[in-house]
Amino acid sequence: MSTGKSTADGRPSRNRTAPRGPRDDRGVIAERILVAARASFAKLGYAGTTLRGVARQADVDPALVNYYFKTKTGLLEAALVPPDGWTASLAEAAASPVKERGAALVRTFVGAWEDPATAEFLRSVILTAAHEPVALQHLVTNFAQYVLQAVSSHLDDADRFTRASLMSSQMVGLAMTRYVWKVGAIAQMSSEDVVRYIAPTIQRYLNGKLGS
Amino acid sequence: MSTGKSTADGRPSRNRTAPRGPRDDRGVIAERILVAARASFAKLGYAGTTLRGVARQADVDPALVNYYFKTKTGLLEAALVPPDGWTASLAEAAASPVKERGAALVRTFVGAWEDPATAEFLRSVILTAAHEPVALQHLVTNFAQYVLQAVSSHLDDADRFTRASLMSSQMVGLAMTRYVWKVGAIAQMSSEDVVRYIAPTIQRYLNGKLGS
Repeated sequence: MSTGKSTADGRPSRNRTAPRGPRDDRGVIAERILVAARASFAKLGYAGTTLRGVARQADVDPALVNYYFKTKTGLLEAALVPPDGWTASLAEAAASPVKERGAALVRTFVGAWEDPATAEFLRSVILTAAHEPVALQHLVTNFAQYVLQAVSSHLDDADRFTRASLMSSQMVGLAMTRYVWKVGAIAQMSSEDVVRYIAPTIQRYLNGKLGS
Repeated sequence: MSTGKSTADGRPSRNRTAPRGPRDDRGVIAERILVAARASFAKLGYAGTTLRGVARQADVDPALVNYYFKTKTGLLEAALVPPDGWTASLAEAAASPVKERGAALVRTFVGAWEDPATAEFLRSVILTAAHEPVALQHLVTNFAQYVLQAVSSHLDDADRFTRASLMSSQMVGLAMTRYVWKVGAIAQMSSEDVVRYIAPTIQRYLNGKLGS
């Protein structure tokens, strides 16, 4: 999957070394554009998003959006790439000691939603996927790779795909009710209570007796 | 909440008795319009939906859409009203013997998603709420009333609101992963397996020991 962040591909080679500001600034600007793009895709959809509108929200020259992301499709694909920190923390929790893994995974999911940058990414993916088939396809592919695969690969029984998928069903519902819809007691309780109530469910799905 | 289905309000009284087809036909036509409206709101959003487009999809005269629902807001509100059958079956499951209530509730949710008309309603509400604040507000209000209130009212301990909300978090995640995103093993397994795996979680949330 392309990150859409390469800046020089396809440009005449004599420009490759042309300075366009310190490397750090480039990363900062590209990230500012991505933040604005995620908000726009979530709110207005793919059809309603324009490179010019994203540039305005990000407070950058529209030419820079073209320069970094080339097309609206390039911008969408880059906006849907999970932050490295999020996938790394998920992989770490998925590999934690199995007896504490339920709590570790809930803490990681809750932590992601309580980090504004990751929350904005997750929220944007969920809302954009509701009305853009391309975004839904990305969500499903990334979900299978970074959530289901990460969790099932550290289980060793025949039910590991079922276990990972059951785990994900509880985590997604936690995300929707607490963070996206903000409905009911789960939207009001402390993070510690979320971990306390949900971890036993995740733990059973991971290594408990399945079925009734 | 208005069902948006009253047909004669606001029309000159001399028209109130004017025959416009048998009563059954009216219900059938209104329902056909609502099915088309739900699909349009889910796909195109509120802004992208037109009464004329809905009429075309429903294969009815645009004047009938105006006649039954008056405005686009009226049409949206009517499209977001849960089918009576769905709320009744949920209330029934919520009142079933407490020891079997986990399985009864999972069966009811799965049954709703496997009934095409109810599934189309639920799907439309979830997708429309992703990009329309009015639809999100309806979803949250209806969810609190028909899901959380129905379930908590048949529990009698101090944790009943927490219990109902935890239950809902699992049910919503089941809906999203299995029916909306269709991702992972949970999207492939039989309904019986869903009940078998998820019912113990719901049962614990309803009357088991909360917390770890």
